[in-house]
Amino acid sequence: MVNKIDKVALFGGTHGNEMTGIYLIKKYLQNPDLIERSTLKVFPFLSNPRAIESRVRYTEIDLNRCFGSEEIDNLDNFLYEQLLAKTIHQKLLNEQINFVVDLHSTTANMGLTIILSDTDDFHLQLCSYLSSIYPEIKVLFYASKEKDKLLRSNTELGLTIEIGAVAQGVLDANLFIKTEKIVESLLDYLDKKNQDQIPEKSHKLGFYEVFERLDYPRINEEIAAMIHPNLQFKDYKPLNPGDDLFITFDGKTITYQGDSTVYPVFVNEAAYYEKGIAMCLAKQREIVVNFNNG
Amino acid sequence: MVNKIDKVALFGGTHGNEMTGIYLIKKYLQNPDLIERSTLKVFPFLSNPRAIESRVRYTEIDLNRCFGSEEIDNLDNFLYEQLLAKTIHQKLLNEQINFVVDLHSTTANMGLTIILSDTDDFHLQLCSYLSSIYPEIKVLFYASKEKDKLLRSNTELGLTIEIGAVAQGVLDANLFIKTEKIVESLLDYLDKKNQDQIPEKSHKLGFYEVFERLDYPRINEEIAAMIHPNLQFKDYKPLNPGDDLFITFDGKTITYQGDSTVYPVFVNEAAYYEKGIAMCLAKQREIVVNFNNG
Repeated sequence: MVNKIDKVALFGGTHGNEMTGIYLIKKYLQNPDLIERSTLKVFPFLSNPRAIESRVRYTEIDLNRCFGSEEIDNLDNFLYEQLLAKTIHQKLLNEQINFVVDLHSTTANMGLTIILSDTDDFHLQLCSYLSSIYPEIKVLFYASKEKDKLLRSNTELGLTIEIGAVAQGVLDANLFIKTEKIVESLLDYLDKKNQDQIPEKSHKLGFYEVFERLDYPRINEEIAAMIHPNLQFKDYKPLNPGDDLFITFDGKTITYQGDSTVYPVFVNEAAYYEKGIAMCLAKQREIVVNFNNG
Repeated sequence: MVNKIDKVALFGGTHGNEMTGIYLIKKYLQNPDLIERSTLKVFPFLSNPRAIESRVRYTEIDLNRCFGSEEIDNLDNFLYEQLLAKTIHQKLLNEQINFVVDLHSTTANMGLTIILSDTDDFHLQLCSYLSSIYPEIKVLFYASKEKDKLLRSNTELGLTIEIGAVAQGVLDANLFIKTEKIVESLLDYLDKKNQDQIPEKSHKLGFYEVFERLDYPRINEEIAAMIHPNLQFKDYKPLNPGDDLFITFDGKTITYQGDSTVYPVFVNEAAYYEKGIAMCLAKQREIVVNFNNG
């Protein structure tokens, strides 16, 4: 565990059509005073300028799946984002960054979500602090098999902020303002923690843990059903066995066949059709965290 | 004016990331009986298969701006969509199509909108009939300077169905079902009209007429403000002088400076950032139409 966080990297535009993070980073590049903190050096980065320019998620391959050590060390791969990942990785090493925040948005109705790959004390304390200020925050523990390939995995500590629902290519002012507030509170927390100014306080933190991904029903790879209207935009709402899941193009309902209540997230995320993910299913958890027991 | 409509072309995927039309056309290609009508021959087409495959609006240039006669007749242009437009145009000529329906979706909250380039009796009667069945339908008269470059302009008669709000790349079941119903009612109308079975009935049709486009405030071409949260998703709602229009990245509100009440549409459409359009402004109109006075 890193003792002190003193170098923070903020990334927007890891996906070039997720506008919230892109415009927030542009704002910070123009107004660096907004992210100045006494004990921190904060670096704002636009991850994929070429994808941003073209307003697409990526140009050749998803940048946010290119940071696995095998890919970073492989000198034979040649796709644009594979090469870009190496330079971002090297930049983080050179600057000795020890905390990465990656700003994303989603077409799913996930509100303001913090995604963690690890539920260690450090991350849970940070999330508890933020959630005590912004009760609407959802914390999602998502240790997918690709977790080591994500941009946020470049450092031991890091997280993704995921906000929605917003269409790709669209800048939603409300979501922009919310993301901005949480980023600045997060920097405040790190700065206070470095100065041992976080009060001792116990907080009951609810969070969600992804345990499964569901694909669309498909026939010869082509999707054969849509997210059911009763599930659309219902991220984090309980889904019970027998509840509506999909509807076929001729109007037949397909229900959830699990054996207990689950909480769907990333429901109908545009970028996940190609990945074979109609939604992720999560379980609800709760933990009592002390803001500053580390 | 065409005396009888007997050949109808239905297009989806003119923009390859607008899923509603794409999947509805795929359904009709697999189930042609759904669009069989006794006096009509109905042709379902996927306009831009390459853009659909890549889940992008277009690959090189917006197909729905390539149908102007100057472009169709120009044998020197060579962009993919310019070439594709020529073959679509020729196909419509060869099949002697006399009515085109082009299915689109938008990230703006425009509900179920029929867009017309002309407000002649034929189109107004058709819209009156549909609006008497589906009161939620909005009719938008949008005679932009590009109107002759649109796919729907290939035939004297034709219209666009625009549905939203839905993100690019997302299939929304509710909007799919609504689009399907209106397309089938539209075919019913044409079929009944051909058989002189439309009842004489007077209907007061409200519609909207686009008269101006507003761009985002920009500094060196880069946008300098977002759609104001009080305007987001408020398509077709009255916008009065002094009402909130944009908000800058540092939180300053920019208000509407016009001199009368207007009705914004295409508010925050993702694809229009590159076209320099933050929204279109429309006036409200009303006309009494007899379903069958033609």
